[in-house]
Amino acid sequence: MTVAEFGEFALIAAVNAGREQAPGVLLGPGDDAAVVAAPTGRFVVTTDMLVQDRHFRLDWSSAYEIGRKAIAQNAADVVAMGAAPSAFVVALGCPGGTRVDFVRELADGMWAEVARSGGSIAGGDMVRSAQLVISVTAFGDPRRAPILRSTARPGDVVAVAGRLGWSAAGLAVLSAGIDPEPFANVVAAHRVPHPPYGAVLELPAAAPVSALTDVSDGLLADLGHIAQSSSVAIDLDAAVLRDPALDPVSTALDTDPLDWILTGGEDHAFAATFRDPEGIPAGWSVIGRVGAGAGVTVDGTSRPGPAGWESFASGG
Amino acid sequence: MTVAEFGEFALIAAVNAGREQAPGVLLGPGDDAAVVAAPTGRFVVTTDMLVQDRHFRLDWSSAYEIGRKAIAQNAADVVAMGAAPSAFVVALGCPGGTRVDFVRELADGMWAEVARSGGSIAGGDMVRSAQLVISVTAFGDPRRAPILRSTARPGDVVAVAGRLGWSAAGLAVLSAGIDPEPFANVVAAHRVPHPPYGAVLELPAAAPVSALTDVSDGLLADLGHIAQSSSVAIDLDAAVLRDPALDPVSTALDTDPLDWILTGGEDHAFAATFRDPEGIPAGWSVIGRVGAGAGVTVDGTSRPGPAGWESFASGG
Repeated sequence: MTVAEFGEFALIAAVNAGREQAPGVLLGPGDDAAVVAAPTGRFVVTTDMLVQDRHFRLDWSSAYEIGRKAIAQNAADVVAMGAAPSAFVVALGCPGGTRVDFVRELADGMWAEVARSGGSIAGGDMVRSAQLVISVTAFGDPRRAPILRSTARPGDVVAVAGRLGWSAAGLAVLSAGIDPEPFANVVAAHRVPHPPYGAVLELPAAAPVSALTDVSDGLLADLGHIAQSSSVAIDLDAAVLRDPALDPVSTALDTDPLDWILTGGEDHAFAATFRDPEGIPAGWSVIGRVGAGAGVTVDGTSRPGPAGWESFASGG
Repeated sequence: MTVAEFGEFALIAAVNAGREQAPGVLLGPGDDAAVVAAPTGRFVVTTDMLVQDRHFRLDWSSAYEIGRKAIAQNAADVVAMGAAPSAFVVALGCPGGTRVDFVRELADGMWAEVARSGGSIAGGDMVRSAQLVISVTAFGDPRRAPILRSTARPGDVVAVAGRLGWSAAGLAVLSAGIDPEPFANVVAAHRVPHPPYGAVLELPAAAPVSALTDVSDGLLADLGHIAQSSSVAIDLDAAVLRDPALDPVSTALDTDPLDWILTGGEDHAFAATFRDPEGIPAGWSVIGRVGAGAGVTVDGTSRPGPAGWESFASGG
């Protein structure tokens, strides 16, 4: 059964059947718009669009995995402001010949990730398009004053929570066409990122965090945004960034795994600066320091080549 | 200059340059997420995706017109809940060969319609895609308890504010390939809808409005949603629906203009039910009444054929 045969309204009913809305969703799907609570009198909002063959491939990822990834990358942006995800809306464009089961599994993956991050899917839109396009908008309740990118200062230390380079390594395995079985860990990480939401949401109120972002474009690129916004320089320590879990993959593909760690996006780790190295909470690892100047260096040296993902570049 | 040559970050800077955020946008573009005020402790949210060759054609509409339409159809959904638009986020997918000027004009059109409806564009995303895809999410401040579709009652009267059938007539002119010049009014209405936001936002607090929707799929389809949600029947009066402005077009195309009025979407008029015919404010015209039963009839008779737009149907 295809979505064209099934029809828009039956499909909307099918993906919403049996879902339980979060308490903050005061009015869910079915009217002209949803109504969401904003108990602090403000809300955080971010939007990301995923396009078939650009952000995912149907032969590399299941519908369920694509759904999880679409929610995770938006939830990570909300959390990167220091806010707890409260609700999501999803617009889906798909060809008329898309199987109804594919859309159901996509929705199941979305709801599974929503269960990890918090909130619920309060509404959406479904339209016909030539390729699969998923547009997610995520909302969050600020738990504290927004943690910006522009507030790092010389003397701060840089720390990360979560994996770096795993998604890029998994993508490299899939792109190389080698047997993915021995590298199931990184391939799984590419298919479904695991942003460590708790590392941010459970930060003690007194944690001396000064700037925060999620690593979606690549560590150098995303820390570059912090460096630029804050008018500071950041230097990273390559030795502490290296991850032995990536060594078997880099050996098989004869590459330097540090490239994946420094420029691979999509792991949705969190990178932060802290005013005081003594105040860094469990779950965070120090990877560098903030100084005067501009740009991001590794062991004091600028790294050649692209810092990360660029939306209109070719490839990908 | 194409977007691929220009680059994502330069493009984001270009479309945001010189824009003034609404007071309710506490933090605009540039960080992981935006922050929007919700002074009543809740917000209204809706999302709509527009796809090239499905919802617009580049040979029939300018980038500016497409931008206005994308905002208008989302703002109309916010207003149809009885809420004032406060902010928007926009995700744009476009081919790498898209001209930078096209994207600038699209953004200009969006900001022009935002100026009509209220709010500002607080953030977004830009990605590469095979066809142009515009996904808008709109937020609103509830001015009163949300005006639902499910709260019409037998005895209510049905009224509309705004144009019906103009957009469909304009589409018919463009589709027929006849000279559009004599029909510039309806062609313009197809390219840029003019939702009468004020007719809802300026409703007196005491106005006895009982249910409300915007007419986006077609009058029969959208009133059908009210009838179904409210478990009532609605009967319309064809004589008062007829619009002499459509007669020259229907004569030229040898069709019954009532089809456009009853089943044409995209004008984004507002259709409401009121408890008391005496309390209907200026700007609203009575077109029918609510009774016991189910479904929508015209002069007491069910109308054959589709009631309006269906997202996965072929054509369009």
